[in-house]
Amino acid sequence: MTRYYRLADIIGERIEQGLYQCGQRLPSVRSLSQEHEVSISTVQQAYRVLEQRQLVEPRPKSGYFVSQKHDLPALPAMCRHAQRPVEISQWDLVLNQLQGRAQGVTQHMGMGIPDVTVPSLKPLTKYLSRIALNTDLSSLNYDEISGSLSLREQISRLLVDSGSHISPDGIMVTTGCHEALSIAIHALCQPGDIIAVDSPSFHGVTQILKGFGMKALEIPTDPLTGISLDALSLALEQWPIKAIQLTPNCNNPLGYIMPDAHKQALLTLAQRYDTPIIEDDVYADLAYHYPRPRTIMSFDEDGRVLLCSSFSKTLAPGLRVGWIAPGRYMDQVIHMKYIGTGATATQPQLAVAEFIRRGDYHKHLRAVRTRYQLNRDIMTDWICAYFPKASRVSRPQGGFVLWIEMPERFDSLRLNRQLEGSGIKVAVGPVFSASGKYRNCIRISYARPLTAEVEAAIKHIGKLMQQQMDEFTA
Amino acid sequence: MTRYYRLADIIGERIEQGLYQCGQRLPSVRSLSQEHEVSISTVQQAYRVLEQRQLVEPRPKSGYFVSQKHDLPALPAMCRHAQRPVEISQWDLVLNQLQGRAQGVTQHMGMGIPDVTVPSLKPLTKYLSRIALNTDLSSLNYDEISGSLSLREQISRLLVDSGSHISPDGIMVTTGCHEALSIAIHALCQPGDIIAVDSPSFHGVTQILKGFGMKALEIPTDPLTGISLDALSLALEQWPIKAIQLTPNCNNPLGYIMPDAHKQALLTLAQRYDTPIIEDDVYADLAYHYPRPRTIMSFDEDGRVLLCSSFSKTLAPGLRVGWIAPGRYMDQVIHMKYIGTGATATQPQLAVAEFIRRGDYHKHLRAVRTRYQLNRDIMTDWICAYFPKASRVSRPQGGFVLWIEMPERFDSLRLNRQLEGSGIKVAVGPVFSASGKYRNCIRISYARPLTAEVEAAIKHIGKLMQQQMDEFTA
Ligand SMILES: Cc1ncc(COP(=O)(O)O)c(C=O)c1O
Ligand SMILES: Cc1ncc(COP(=O)(O)O)c(C=O)c1O
Repeated sequence: MTRYYRLADIIGERIEQGLYQCGQRLPSVRSLSQEHEVSISTVQQAYRVLEQRQLVEPRPKSGYFVSQKHDLPALPAMCRHAQRPVEISQWDLVLNQLQGRAQGVTQHMGMGIPDVTVPSLKPLTKYLSRIALNTDLSSLNYDEISGSLSLREQISRLLVDSGSHISPDGIMVTTGCHEALSIAIHALCQPGDIIAVDSPSFHGVTQILKGFGMKALEIPTDPLTGISLDALSLALEQWPIKAIQLTPNCNNPLGYIMPDAHKQALLTLAQRYDTPIIEDDVYADLAYHYPRPRTIMSFDEDGRVLLCSSFSKTLAPGLRVGWIAPGRYMDQVIHMKYIGTGATATQPQLAVAEFIRRGDYHKHLRAVRTRYQLNRDIMTDWICAYFPKASRVSRPQGGFVLWIEMPERFDSLRLNRQLEGSGIKVAVGPVFSASGKYRNCIRISYARPLTAEVEAAIKHIGKLMQQQMDEFTA
Repeated sequence: MTRYYRLADIIGERIEQGLYQCGQRLPSVRSLSQEHEVSISTVQQAYRVLEQRQLVEPRPKSGYFVSQKHDLPALPAMCRHAQRPVEISQWDLVLNQLQGRAQGVTQHMGMGIPDVTVPSLKPLTKYLSRIALNTDLSSLNYDEISGSLSLREQISRLLVDSGSHISPDGIMVTTGCHEALSIAIHALCQPGDIIAVDSPSFHGVTQILKGFGMKALEIPTDPLTGISLDALSLALEQWPIKAIQLTPNCNNPLGYIMPDAHKQALLTLAQRYDTPIIEDDVYADLAYHYPRPRTIMSFDEDGRVLLCSSFSKTLAPGLRVGWIAPGRYMDQVIHMKYIGTGATATQPQLAVAEFIRRGDYHKHLRAVRTRYQLNRDIMTDWICAYFPKASRVSRPQGGFVLWIEMPERFDSLRLNRQLEGSGIKVAVGPVFSASGKYRNCIRISYARPLTAEVEAAIKHIGKLMQQQMDEFTA
């Protein structure tokens, strides 16, 4: 057992024993480090483990507190999949989820869209406007194929927070994280190839696999620690897996942050089988902790990790500014960029670069992190209050989506049909699986301000859920 | 022979006979229509044929004149390819062409970039800036997967000029024409498939084929009338061709406009072999004629044409706003869009929509068409004056690039090496071929203002070319 797990157990025990009271401030990182003669970072990791166990909670600028929540709902179960590669289905469902607007949906509760109305985003609109009017018209021209140097420089700086030192030359800008993932997969794999993915996972990736005629091997995932390393190890042993694709930080849809020890173990596995890793980091800057979690890439020494991200969740998705740091695969990745879109729109890149350069980005992150963490607690409370008792709810460590698991017979597709006409819609579980699993699950976003209208919608959804539940017992 | 070809021959003969003098105004369309009892459009088409034969020239608002140019350079020859499918090479050369900036190139004479400094583009920057500041922040969010309705409505209106009536639902917005082409090819074809392409042609397409593991069958092309229908017919007979990809209007790099009769004949061929057509229309709004030429799609009745275009050549490539009208293939195309980039950047779309809606687009087209046509004549004169006598030069009917063919032994790659250090670079012929043909050819753009500096560059290029020529005879 690692040092920080041991420390976590000691503190955890003290909490259980009532030594620290509910809501009470816990010893500072520094004092614990002295008391137990371990490094600061060991204590920090121990606190993260405890947070994942829902025993402690960080509060901005004041340290850790014993969790207030004693009535937290149960976590979703780790599902046990049949481990074999599947052809991907579910496109119709994904398309249906994307086309909410056309269906008269006014409250799409399941969309992965950040709150773009927060005041800290204002400078971005100013920069966008200013760049458009610039008399140097070069921003109207094709950008370099790898993206604006000014943006890549800023991304290079941001990457330090995730534990990596990558020069601007090691970064390529993309049309959203979506293109980054698509390029990574296309650069590494051929039609017919098998790719291991964490499950449940972002539907973009499974649909990309479908589009390229590849197969997904869905690896079971723990709602607190992420992809099962045992299952992954078995899968690597058994199948010729061409790449591992996963979202270890602030996972969509589960919200967990993989412990660093797991990240390292996963990397060791990938080394053993010489498999590249496609790491999706798109929500990671929205981790409620500061500093943000490390990437798997930050442990990588041989360039096997292709890190994919964007500013879609942290700033605004309509900009379509994403990027990839593809390690040793830059040549292939540049070619795939050229054959996909040629270049990325110039002006949004310049505006994002300016936003980061001037320090607005970190200010904005601080604002939204706090906001989303608060919203998580409110939304969790509402779900406890209005959803059937049997609901199991994720405990996100970052981002802004909740994953709710209902008993096996519950049908999320039926729920959406029942919601038709109300203007409300949820994201249904099967879009998060290559093979249509999770029909009994839904994803709910808590990014937007949690108004009375949202509460009413949650209440309404809960009522319809309860109706389904009642039918089972009737 | 069609009616308008017959009429073209009659008028052509009169010119040859000296009945109409060099520089003289020719009879109006209306009077010829009455004299020969044919429709207005037949006369217009006859005049276009004559223009392609370089016997007549249109002048804005004053009709047709006998061509002033008696010393026009010879046209490039129609090359006879060995007709077999090839794996695509040339990526290194294409990348080299794209990376001019990094190489210290200040005068890239070969880039397909429009003049973004023209005053008629000004309103676009104003709209971009205004949209960025809009208090309705929805433009920061994901757009519909098929693109902004307001833009699709405007594109639908523009399509009428090319002879098509397509509703906004039949259009999908893309990240440049590049993504439109990539999506079209990916939606229709599998790795290993054979696609027929006009040759020479845009390197984007051949590299897309390479990226998807497909093969190109390069069809010989006439520098005035486009893809050889005989050669295409033979190819369709001989090989299992999955799609025909071509740029019939204002072709890149040759500049021709395929006669309508050829477009119809090509469609008939495609029908016979039940082959879809991927039609690249990206330069067509820059035809020097008004009204602009018809698309192949405008003759299509069974939805087999996928029309790809963008505002990269007409407005500004850095916006990355393109589109596809995919006929009966919309479902597949939407899926490929989702797996490539998810959605297109929102704000540039809204700005382009506004630019068209307010009439700025047509005003702008009038301005740049005239400008580019003038530039074509100036650049052609310079080339006649400064390039070796053996140079053969295309006679573009639209767009802003010239194709120059030198004797067989001339080496364009060597020319670029000799230009190193001068800050000047040309586009070399082999990037316009799937298999590295056209090493003796270069492409020169005349979009930017033709300053003394440009003239000096042309002179310098000509001198180096002559050196190569002298070596052959020495
Ligand atoms: C995990 C994950 N990765 C990638 C994406 C796509 O991001 P972008 O909008 O930047 O293409 C999403 C968006 O939903 C996501 O949830
Ligand atoms: C014939 C042709 N098609 C498509 C493109 C790509 O256009 P876009 O910049 O809109 O992706 C080009 C650009 O060079 C081109 O010449």
